Amino acid sequence: MSDRYEKGMKVLEITNKDTIQEVFKELEDIAPDLGKFIVEFPYSEIYTREGLDLKTRELITVGALTALSNSEGQLKNHINAALNVGNSPKEIVEAIMQMSAYAGFPAAINGIKAAKEIFKKRDLLPLR
Amino acid sequence: MSDRYEKGMKVLEITNKDTIQEVFKELEDIAPDLGKFIVEFPYSEIYTREGLDLKTRELITVGALTALSNSEGQLKNHINAALNVGNSPKEIVEAIMQMSAYAGFPAAINGIKAAKEIFKKRDLLPLR
Amino acid sequence: MSDRYEKGMKVLEITNKDTIQEVFKELEDIAPDLGKFIVEFPYSEIYTREGLDLKTRELITVGALTALSNSEGQLKNHINAALNVGNSPKEIVEAIMQMSAYAGFPAAINGIKAAKEIFKKRDLLPLR
Amino acid sequence: MSDRYEKGMKVLEITNKDTIQEVFKELEDIAPDLGKFIVEFPYSEIYTREGLDLKTRELITVGALTALSNSEGQLKNHINAALNVGNSPKEIVEAIMQMSAYAGFPAAINGIKAAKEIFKKRDLLPLR
Amino acid sequence: MSDRYEKGMKVLEITNKDTIQEVFKELEDIAPDLGKFIVEFPYSEIYTREGLDLKTRELITVGALTALSNSEGQLKNHINAALNVGNSPKEIVEAIMQMSAYAGFPAAINGIKAAKEIFKKRDLLPLR
Amino acid sequence: MSDRYEKGMKVLEITNKDTIQEVFKELEDIAPDLGKFIVEFPYSEIYTREGLDLKTRELITVGALTALSNSEGQLKNHINAALNVGNSPKEIVEAIMQMSAYAGFPAAINGIKAAKEIFKKRDLLPLR
Repeated sequence: MSDRYEKGMKVLEITNKDTIQEVFKELEDIAPDLGKFIVEFPYSEIYTREGLDLKTRELITVGALTALSNSEGQLKNHINAALNVGNSPKEIVEAIMQMSAYAGFPAAINGIKAAKEIFKKRDLLPLR
Repeated sequence: MSDRYEKGMKVLEITNKDTIQEVFKELEDIAPDLGKFIVEFPYSEIYTREGLDLKTRELITVGALTALSNSEGQLKNHINAALNVGNSPKEIVEAIMQMSAYAGFPAAINGIKAAKEIFKKRDLLPLR
Repeated sequence: MSDRYEKGMKVLEITNKDTIQEVFKELEDIAPDLGKFIVEFPYSEIYTREGLDLKTRELITVGALTALSNSEGQLKNHINAALNVGNSPKEIVEAIMQMSAYAGFPAAINGIKAAKEIFKKRDLLPLR
Repeated sequence: MSDRYEKGMKVLEITNKDTIQEVFKELEDIAPDLGKFIVEFPYSEIYTREGLDLKTRELITVGALTALSNSEGQLKNHINAALNVGNSPKEIVEAIMQMSAYAGFPAAINGIKAAKEIFKKRDLLPLR
Repeated sequence: MSDRYEKGMKVLEITNKDTIQEVFKELEDIAPDLGKFIVEFPYSEIYTREGLDLKTRELITVGALTALSNSEGQLKNHINAALNVGNSPKEIVEAIMQMSAYAGFPAAINGIKAAKEIFKKRDLLPLR
Repeated sequence: MSDRYEKGMKVLEITNKDTIQEVFKELEDIAPDLGKFIVEFPYSEIYTREGLDLKTRELITVGALTALSNSEGQLKNHINAALNVGNSPKEIVEAIMQMSAYAGFPAAINGIKAAKEIFKKRDLLPLR
């Protein structure tokens, strides 16, 4: 294992502990290197950079994936991660709702549905 | 002018003072109501909400518009706004670079080019 | 309830009676304001405008959501709404098929599949 | 020239007379068949279909291209075409503004800017 | 049946034998002409062109649908087709993984998941 | 300089010699690490992989960027690169035209316009 891999895994242990293992499992018999790249590039080289903390980074990712609205599963993983690094459910909801102005209401509603599923699993509803 | 309009304009005076006037000017002889809606919906009802401060909201918008990569002009406006509400150039660059993992390198490079243009105008380069 | 809310709900009673209630229900314990915004912005301020009737507006929305192909559920809701405001199933199919030229065949096929599901529920198939 | 080509050109003479010649000119020394396909598929086989008239079809296309926000030039061509087949400037503006709810404000503003350019050339501004 | 239809069906017998029948079946009581257009335009007029062989064409389509990430079903159909015209599972995986750089990791991961489903059905896993 | 950087630069010397220097120049005073990531991730870790040769990889990228239609500059760079690694102008045109079926005609036309600009600079027109 490279240094970059270890560095990335340290971030993932904080942000996405469980889901990265699922991603590895999903990829192992077909494209294990893609899992490696995810650890070694975004997690090792982007999320570890100074200038923004993990809490803000994950919130930006939640906003962007809501706006792109092309990857429900990964959006849920990042909503989970956003909670894990200290965002409140309300902060996540705000980031998603804001996307209605930049990517339209359907994208925002579907983002909220994704958050609802994660919040329910983590017993965070109803939100006040 | 409605209360909502005034409320939105107060936000815009902090975030996008100059650019909203350009938007109004651009729209005035064709679709002035669209300008009004922008003031009354996102700025009055989203950006004023509790839960996230303007600094974080503008950074999320910069990330999302970089990822969507469908509106260079508006991305520049929000990079300006993000600076106006207290984001450092470095924080903006980080938000944009992070998008390489979620929307690809071309989207990230073009986001950086947009930031470069704004930073240059505001004499913020080179970045250290 | 604001005047804008009531104005928007009057439109929704014509277009999307059942589905807006489902949206409210979906959002109530997590982001009820997003439901309010949908009533107060697009339905109160866009769909009530002169210049285009509801029948044409819903058809344009069906075309656009087919082209964007990022929100299957909302596309189905608007296919329902398009029928409710007087579009024939054939008109809806034509709007969707036309999108093959602007967003590709996969987007158009998936739009037709969404229409098929709605038309079947409303006993409108086979189309002649 | 095939029957389909002639059938498509008849539509284009009504909708986009000038712009199709520019497209042909643009493509002639590199991909002339792409121009032929545009005549023979969307114009010959989609725009000639019963169920929707040209006026409605062009308005739907304007809405969809605004929402996709990936082709400024073609959006302008279709705004021109939409006027040519009997849409009023106001109808076109309404179709574009409506997209703010489904694809966000930046897409809608850029759609209006495209319309403004075409309307100005055709001396249709200010809009009342 | 037109010559173009027959020409397109000959390609589809090589690439997508089973799936085109499912598409026809899906469309038959609602929009059969859309099925006809798919045979007569892309399969008859694009996939039969000189300059690129079917193997390369299907691989490009797999890459593009992965990047667009808006049509899981059609991506799977083209992964199947890509195998049918002589691409190895590894070549398909490489085309999909490469998209991580141009459309982001979520698009690439979801492309790999689609490939996994097809490869599993065809007993092609684990990949070595 | 890391091994990965050198490995990536070797690929770039074959594919995009000139354009990577422009990218570095563009990024140097604002986000030089983004340039480094492009060398170290896609060029070092993706384009060097077995399973697909550079010629096919660049053609897939041209198709995908045409379909995404969100980055004209990068599309042109990859059209250049596709030529540099042995694709004929005709092969590139075919890859782009094919995208009309998956991302619509506007995306394909704009892809051809990008190719035309590059081919003209390299004195490759008219195409026969």
